[in-house]
Amino acid sequence: MTSPVGLHRVLAPGGVLPQAAQRLDNAERIASDEVRVRVERLNLDAASFRQLATKHGGDGAAVRAEVLAIVEARGKMHNPVTGSGGMLIGTVEEVGPDSPLGLKVGDRIATLVSLTLTPLKVTDGLCRWDGTGEQVPCDGYAILFGRSIAAVLPDDLAGELALAVLDVCGAPALTDRVVRRYDRAAVAVIGGAGKSGSLSLAAARRAGARTVGVVPNDRERDLLTRAGLADAVALADARDPVALSEAVKQALGGPADVTVVCVDVPGCEHGAILSTADGGTVIFFSMATSFSAAALGAEGLAADVTMLIGNGYLPGHAEFALDLLRAEPAVRNVFTARLAAD
Amino acid sequence: MTSPVGLHRVLAPGGVLPQAAQRLDNAERIASDEVRVRVERLNLDAASFRQLATKHGGDGAAVRAEVLAIVEARGKMHNPVTGSGGMLIGTVEEVGPDSPLGLKVGDRIATLVSLTLTPLKVTDGLCRWDGTGEQVPCDGYAILFGRSIAAVLPDDLAGELALAVLDVCGAPALTDRVVRRYDRAAVAVIGGAGKSGSLSLAAARRAGARTVGVVPNDRERDLLTRAGLADAVALADARDPVALSEAVKQALGGPADVTVVCVDVPGCEHGAILSTADGGTVIFFSMATSFSAAALGAEGLAADVTMLIGNGYLPGHAEFALDLLRAEPAVRNVFTARLAAD
Repeated sequence: MTSPVGLHRVLAPGGVLPQAAQRLDNAERIASDEVRVRVERLNLDAASFRQLATKHGGDGAAVRAEVLAIVEARGKMHNPVTGSGGMLIGTVEEVGPDSPLGLKVGDRIATLVSLTLTPLKVTDGLCRWDGTGEQVPCDGYAILFGRSIAAVLPDDLAGELALAVLDVCGAPALTDRVVRRYDRAAVAVIGGAGKSGSLSLAAARRAGARTVGVVPNDRERDLLTRAGLADAVALADARDPVALSEAVKQALGGPADVTVVCVDVPGCEHGAILSTADGGTVIFFSMATSFSAAALGAEGLAADVTMLIGNGYLPGHAEFALDLLRAEPAVRNVFTARLAAD
Repeated sequence: MTSPVGLHRVLAPGGVLPQAAQRLDNAERIASDEVRVRVERLNLDAASFRQLATKHGGDGAAVRAEVLAIVEARGKMHNPVTGSGGMLIGTVEEVGPDSPLGLKVGDRIATLVSLTLTPLKVTDGLCRWDGTGEQVPCDGYAILFGRSIAAVLPDDLAGELALAVLDVCGAPALTDRVVRRYDRAAVAVIGGAGKSGSLSLAAARRAGARTVGVVPNDRERDLLTRAGLADAVALADARDPVALSEAVKQALGGPADVTVVCVDVPGCEHGAILSTADGGTVIFFSMATSFSAAALGAEGLAADVTMLIGNGYLPGHAEFALDLLRAEPAVRNVFTARLAAD
């Protein structure tokens, strides 16, 4: 009997789920409820790539060597420092007779579960990747479990664009759900010019919110202003709690009902809490979020705010995000500009 | 102009909140919205004391010297390794005319904000402390800001008991709030025989829930069963996701609507998520929670659960917890047993 959550692929330590595992079994042969995917491209998580690039001072060859070493050692792309992974696209190569995922051989798909729990084997030494960007051309294979989530790539969108959207598709879906709990919410999206940020801004506006997008520099301010995705655009360093909260309050005429943290740098917890009204909600999507900084920070500020760990899964999240991209040319413009810059 | 969150007391680095500061100004003279407290006892955070005791091999004099050195260097008791502090009790010595805290000179209080953000000066060299326990008799003073939280110690409870309750008073208040969103919720409290766990069980039951308390060993099972605080008591290792979720499902007749994590060991995120029904909520109170393990774990399990970072502050949390202790002899029994064992 194999496990729908992949317990049978955990090599060490025993008893944990694949994401918590030190090492997964990436054997090519699939169980009856598994699917094997021929990998075409890995999309590294932004926090993970940034950590690797910083550690190696931008030396792409060293970054590539470390990614290869991680996958070799762990049987999955799971950055041990950031704890994060990313996702992949590829083509379905074999489908076990008991797989519940509804995929068929030849489908071009993106995985919507993290690389941190996906058995992966790289077979080309990542020779087509220069190590200087998050998009990693790759030959190899990956395994999906019975309960893994994957989306067939839409025909009407370029693969790279669809992948970038699917990578962050939990953010707009959860933003939508939370914003609808408030009456005409005031929403601040920290990192509003990024991928998850721009989708979250579009979702918040569609859910009836007034919005401000906060960005760290003139370039992103211009990008977001041109896109017209937010009612206001504010410039602030998210790591400076007072500067951030003042920028938000000035733009919204008061603190935010919902603050969405989409910047992948550490130290944004206190500013996000200070920017949020009592009774409000902070959604942390950044993998650089510190649990204890958030918990102790809110207590220390006597802030009665609900703090959510951004769950990357909601039912229908992939279609929701792809529909936002299709319906909002401004979102597509931001993504196109981002992808061109990568 | 002074800041209600204490920015005017931050000496280094500039721009951060007192909790993130390297060094605070612990000058005795108070601003118009501050309060000065004559300190009677520090209650070091368990993780912090354990780190210091381990480092010095149980040499109490060395532990005392290091605590003194930390307070001297930082102007606050903020363990640089664990990042944690603790709380204090003392007597209000001076109240600025603009203080909003409602305290008066002579009130005996406990601080409900962490020592990591509380300006502190020790004046007796901690000469009455032997360095071998978390409770530190101390002479000196501490400063409360406009937005700090403190509770007047109740006359009807021993100081040690009240302090232990106040230390975890955010947990029952948030449990109450979340449980009331569901109709006759099924609630699992992981670590139900501990301080925050027993209070959370009592709060959940009072809010109309069916409850199970999960404990790691026979001793705690007997303690919790005798106390009668939960409808069921289950034995499971919270770090084993499958064992934990099966124990919860068996006790409740299905997954929990609300799962409350009160155990201070790493690696409980996946089990808590697996124990929770779609549409349910996980509240993480443990400081050992990993943000990325929770976020990626829920995504990897395709689990549509709301995950809350346990905020230690809610309005009225101190009175709520003290009232639970007064009203529920079973809670008091658990606390008394815990304090006797310490």
